[in-house]
Amino acid sequence: MYLRAVRGPRISRETAPVATGALPPAPPRVFASDNAAGAHPAVMEALARANAGHALAYGADPITREAVAQFRELFGAEVDVSFAYGGSGANVFALACMLQPAEAVVCTTSSHIAVDESGAPERILGAKLIDLPSPDAKLTPEMVRSVLHLRDSLHHVAPAVVSLTQVTEVGTLYEPAEVRALCDTAHEAGLRVHMDGARIANATAALGGTRAALRAMTIDAGVDVLTFGGTKAGGVFGEAVVFLTRDPQYAARAPRVHKQVGQLHSKQRFIAAQYSALLRDDLFVTLGRQANAAAARLHAAVSDVASLRLGAPPRANSLFPTIAQPARRRLQDWTFFWDWDAARDQARWMTAWDVTAQDVDAFAAGVRAAVA
Amino acid sequence: MYLRAVRGPRISRETAPVATGALPPAPPRVFASDNAAGAHPAVMEALARANAGHALAYGADPITREAVAQFRELFGAEVDVSFAYGGSGANVFALACMLQPAEAVVCTTSSHIAVDESGAPERILGAKLIDLPSPDAKLTPEMVRSVLHLRDSLHHVAPAVVSLTQVTEVGTLYEPAEVRALCDTAHEAGLRVHMDGARIANATAALGGTRAALRAMTIDAGVDVLTFGGTKAGGVFGEAVVFLTRDPQYAARAPRVHKQVGQLHSKQRFIAAQYSALLRDDLFVTLGRQANAAAARLHAAVSDVASLRLGAPPRANSLFPTIAQPARRRLQDWTFFWDWDAARDQARWMTAWDVTAQDVDAFAAGVRAAVA
Amino acid sequence: MYLRAVRGPRISRETAPVATGALPPAPPRVFASDNAAGAHPAVMEALARANAGHALAYGADPITREAVAQFRELFGAEVDVSFAYGGSGANVFALACMLQPAEAVVCTTSSHIAVDESGAPERILGAKLIDLPSPDAKLTPEMVRSVLHLRDSLHHVAPAVVSLTQVTEVGTLYEPAEVRALCDTAHEAGLRVHMDGARIANATAALGGTRAALRAMTIDAGVDVLTFGGTKAGGVFGEAVVFLTRDPQYAARAPRVHKQVGQLHSKQRFIAAQYSALLRDDLFVTLGRQANAAAARLHAAVSDVASLRLGAPPRANSLFPTIAQPARRRLQDWTFFWDWDAARDQARWMTAWDVTAQDVDAFAAGVRAAVA
Amino acid sequence: MYLRAVRGPRISRETAPVATGALPPAPPRVFASDNAAGAHPAVMEALARANAGHALAYGADPITREAVAQFRELFGAEVDVSFAYGGSGANVFALACMLQPAEAVVCTTSSHIAVDESGAPERILGAKLIDLPSPDAKLTPEMVRSVLHLRDSLHHVAPAVVSLTQVTEVGTLYEPAEVRALCDTAHEAGLRVHMDGARIANATAALGGTRAALRAMTIDAGVDVLTFGGTKAGGVFGEAVVFLTRDPQYAARAPRVHKQVGQLHSKQRFIAAQYSALLRDDLFVTLGRQANAAAARLHAAVSDVASLRLGAPPRANSLFPTIAQPARRRLQDWTFFWDWDAARDQARWMTAWDVTAQDVDAFAAGVRAAVA
Repeated sequence: MYLRAVRGPRISRETAPVATGALPPAPPRVFASDNAAGAHPAVMEALARANAGHALAYGADPITREAVAQFRELFGAEVDVSFAYGGSGANVFALACMLQPAEAVVCTTSSHIAVDESGAPERILGAKLIDLPSPDAKLTPEMVRSVLHLRDSLHHVAPAVVSLTQVTEVGTLYEPAEVRALCDTAHEAGLRVHMDGARIANATAALGGTRAALRAMTIDAGVDVLTFGGTKAGGVFGEAVVFLTRDPQYAARAPRVHKQVGQLHSKQRFIAAQYSALLRDDLFVTLGRQANAAAARLHAAVSDVASLRLGAPPRANSLFPTIAQPARRRLQDWTFFWDWDAARDQARWMTAWDVTAQDVDAFAAGVRAAVA
Repeated sequence: MYLRAVRGPRISRETAPVATGALPPAPPRVFASDNAAGAHPAVMEALARANAGHALAYGADPITREAVAQFRELFGAEVDVSFAYGGSGANVFALACMLQPAEAVVCTTSSHIAVDESGAPERILGAKLIDLPSPDAKLTPEMVRSVLHLRDSLHHVAPAVVSLTQVTEVGTLYEPAEVRALCDTAHEAGLRVHMDGARIANATAALGGTRAALRAMTIDAGVDVLTFGGTKAGGVFGEAVVFLTRDPQYAARAPRVHKQVGQLHSKQRFIAAQYSALLRDDLFVTLGRQANAAAARLHAAVSDVASLRLGAPPRANSLFPTIAQPARRRLQDWTFFWDWDAARDQARWMTAWDVTAQDVDAFAAGVRAAVA
Repeated sequence: MYLRAVRGPRISRETAPVATGALPPAPPRVFASDNAAGAHPAVMEALARANAGHALAYGADPITREAVAQFRELFGAEVDVSFAYGGSGANVFALACMLQPAEAVVCTTSSHIAVDESGAPERILGAKLIDLPSPDAKLTPEMVRSVLHLRDSLHHVAPAVVSLTQVTEVGTLYEPAEVRALCDTAHEAGLRVHMDGARIANATAALGGTRAALRAMTIDAGVDVLTFGGTKAGGVFGEAVVFLTRDPQYAARAPRVHKQVGQLHSKQRFIAAQYSALLRDDLFVTLGRQANAAAARLHAAVSDVASLRLGAPPRANSLFPTIAQPARRRLQDWTFFWDWDAARDQARWMTAWDVTAQDVDAFAAGVRAAVA
Repeated sequence: MYLRAVRGPRISRETAPVATGALPPAPPRVFASDNAAGAHPAVMEALARANAGHALAYGADPITREAVAQFRELFGAEVDVSFAYGGSGANVFALACMLQPAEAVVCTTSSHIAVDESGAPERILGAKLIDLPSPDAKLTPEMVRSVLHLRDSLHHVAPAVVSLTQVTEVGTLYEPAEVRALCDTAHEAGLRVHMDGARIANATAALGGTRAALRAMTIDAGVDVLTFGGTKAGGVFGEAVVFLTRDPQYAARAPRVHKQVGQLHSKQRFIAAQYSALLRDDLFVTLGRQANAAAARLHAAVSDVASLRLGAPPRANSLFPTIAQPARRRLQDWTFFWDWDAARDQARWMTAWDVTAQDVDAFAAGVRAAVA
């Protein structure tokens, strides 16, 4: 089923209603989204350092060179990196480099590109997203194979790029072997693979927390282009698009397409500096681990409340509890979080890198008070 | 599930393999599609008559004025008509007049715009199609209501146009009351309604065969813009886009958008003349009735063959038999028709306006010989 | 200067005002445009012949195969041909096959694609047209070279296709050597060449009237993709896009892009049949010659009227006279033709393939009566 | 003439060659562009302050509300503000809200949207830019009127938005009366007016330095939508799009189009905070004044070198000197600046907000040494 949920803020910029009722004090940090958090101090310091003096714009600066070198240290000397402004823009930029006319992207109906980017892919790419339903928001080789026949007819768009999200939009994870199986299926059929890694930091933390773990589920598994999230990982703004496989066509097109889709920052050093800070000593993994741990703690604190139907502990940093009305609304008034599938009384709790144990405990206490 | 079937010719222009085996002689007319037929003699005569002397281009000619007048006689003096080249182009043109930026079209996953136009809507409109699964390829008010909440968030495209196909791509029909219920739901929510009437002639024939029947399921039911099919109805080329409801915005935009989407014919009199012929004495209804009757005759002739799983008699001009291999391939080699859902051994038989009783009987004999 | 003139009909479909005053009887054929003419009888006969029986749609039919074979006889076995509906659509389709993201088309400010297609190239291609001013509407190698430096910066679109029009929009002609020089310049720099040959028939007639002459200014000169006009050459509808040079990328993309841009006709045999007729015995050249001869006769008849400033005899089928008001309006009321550059009192007279000597003489008499 | 110059960095990220020869020490700050500068300390402090705790994303936060309130204090309670990531994106977003299908933007051939955005407007808007040549990069009412006739024909795009740049790309300024005359002409004809104010801070400083001066050339003059530059004015990233006139259609479309064009930042407070700092005590004017003063000082220091052909003192922060080779290359190796029109030996010197008198004097000394 298409587009079950409404996420993100209402269009009108209403002040969130103040909390009421006999609930304990709300925690100072929210469980609405990981983009409700600010930036890590090391990122802020990097911004301040990058602010010294002049630097040529659009990437011809030493800070950008340093960050690119760090990415190459991580993924190998062959990779290329471009810095974009935001997540939707980075995805569109990556796909714009990968698609030819009348080609399409295979994804799930839950994918950010299909649901949460206000149609930016269709408008900017002019391409169809073949969005396949998937209960766990994961693609499988079988799903990819199920649409390959479309290439046999000129009446249909040709699947050309498989786009998967890691961590998925519903908090599930692809194991490295699953990514590899998808990439193998795609590559054998001549398709290329894009990974939307807006939460790649959380995924890395969840799958071992090492650089090897990150590589295992990306470049080693065969992913061609990776959106490597920065904003949710503790940044102020900026995403990285990492071209993991050497394709002369991507390389030729990318710089110009970069500006054409509105994602080339003039003062690019300020994005690069943030990535330098996040990559140094694997800070992004540390922050991903913190966010994941907060979600795990929250699960542990309330999973005995059967009505929440929380199921197994989370792999990453989100939980999808069931909370009937009026309790859900009451809790949202107390400290805001989003409905995920209102028709099924399902909400989403998401933890950011800076959520503390105290925040979790305070939130859990409120949930218990409202629900139990 | 998205895009189950491959229709239309393979990209390579292969000659269809010649028939083999102990089958009776194949009928001279095929059951592959209604666009395998040529044009009705009255259409050809109209083209010949229209070819006399000079006429100003792009619609400033008396033949266009005459055809527009005929449409107004049919639908009312308030309607406006534009003539397009082909079905995909006509749909895109209609939707281009109806959509604003970041607005989306609600349709089914089986709809021609979603499946069979090679992504023309996404490319030319830059808009998302919210394609909802529907076993009978029909939209319901409930389906429309299920996506209205998307308008509440700036992260999602806003459903703005409901596009239904009459006759649907799987041969089902909307009753006038069903169209009206959809239009009422759409209009109450501020959406507009487009009907892809590539087979509106077959639909009219099926629902009574009168002008009143046509109006009942279109303008009287609240449809805003109608693609009124001509090519499949017995024409050489050309489709009509009928703006049934007076909307100053459409009127202002349509002429220019018409050329912008590549659907404005210079020698427009040649399209208009065909419509004049098709509308005169309701020839389009007669031809739609003939096509429907051929499908009904075919159903009657083979519906006792249980393995075909043909179910109830067809409403319009298509049947979707189940035929396992190698019989299906053998029949297709004998006289070509398309697979509909190869994974389920389902094919499509479609009858054109000029298919005769002899054609049907010969085809049915072959089917019996191959399948039974 | 951009877009000097308004051509084509006003948006409102007004009846052209009736003639007044002491002018001789107006000729039955107009000098408004070559698309005011109907189709040649041989084309109509071909349509009638093509209307026999059934044929698989979308090009999988023997008539299409025959027309493609005729094009290969003309241009060589290596060329590929697609049939489109109209001129704007054919140009957009050709360019869509030739362009990558962030690439641009070099043309003149007078070119049909830049001026007369209501922005279809920008909308459907999403590409910029680098339109260079040119008094004679012709591109030169120097003009192409003048924009090559744009490729050196990611801030600019990259010129990738040179599009020239033959006959140009102001009636001038490229000599074969000029086309070759353009193609050489383009190819050396890695650009490809598109020729908008909406009036290629007139150009062929003007440059010798032989197949060798046609080849000399197209395939032999290095043109990669040719829009080979059919509608103005005596057809009912339909244009051909001829891929003259073997490019695997074009070949792979073309069939699908064909439908995506709304230019794939289901009953394609009806376009192919017209081209078969036009190519047989070089009928298109004969008709181009007739149109050109009518323009030449008109020039000879009135070129002594100094105020018209007609200059040298026309190469093809258009004249651009200067006629001050109120004489211009009076003549247009008598028999309609278009203003070309109203600010400079310039009009356009264009002759079609079916304009007779009597038509020309009657028109010339009226011009003398109104202007002298 | 279209696109004379190459600006911006070469696509390959080469290190700028080191200086050679007997030139004095190069200044620490460059004259390459105003985006070579970092951010003002007050902006950095604002970012740090904004980094405290959690805030709901996408604008539902108090910092965004505060910045919007400051804009309303400046321009009036009726204006609406959206924050975008970068200059090209902000322009595209503004125009996307203002354009209907088949409408076009009137601008100059020098305009940033036409030359320096890699075709983003054509790709994302699908619209034509009617770019008119203008020696001083300014539009006039007469230029606007010269294209209004295009609206009379369905073959042409309809001019619908006039986009002017203040300060222009060649350093010239519109006086408030000139903007008003343009707006009056546009509005009388039913067109709307967009101002690309990437350097609105420099323009405000140049035209009096008061809020009244800013209003006089924008909202009071009739501008409908203003891109209010932040990055060049001393920010890290982010631009503001100010909807100056109340248009319910803009208001309805803007939030959704905002995300659709990839310009909606999740952690929007970080853009808003920068604008709060820039608007407080008119810091943006102070910084604009500093940049302008540096350019004036540079002009005064070298304008006696006749070969530079500097002409009158600059109004804002750019100079366009003529420097023949090899002196130009030698200077660029010493401290980098861009060629503007290499064919005419013209370069561009641009001063940023942080360029000091010492920087200017050191640069001027180098110029004298290299050129004289």
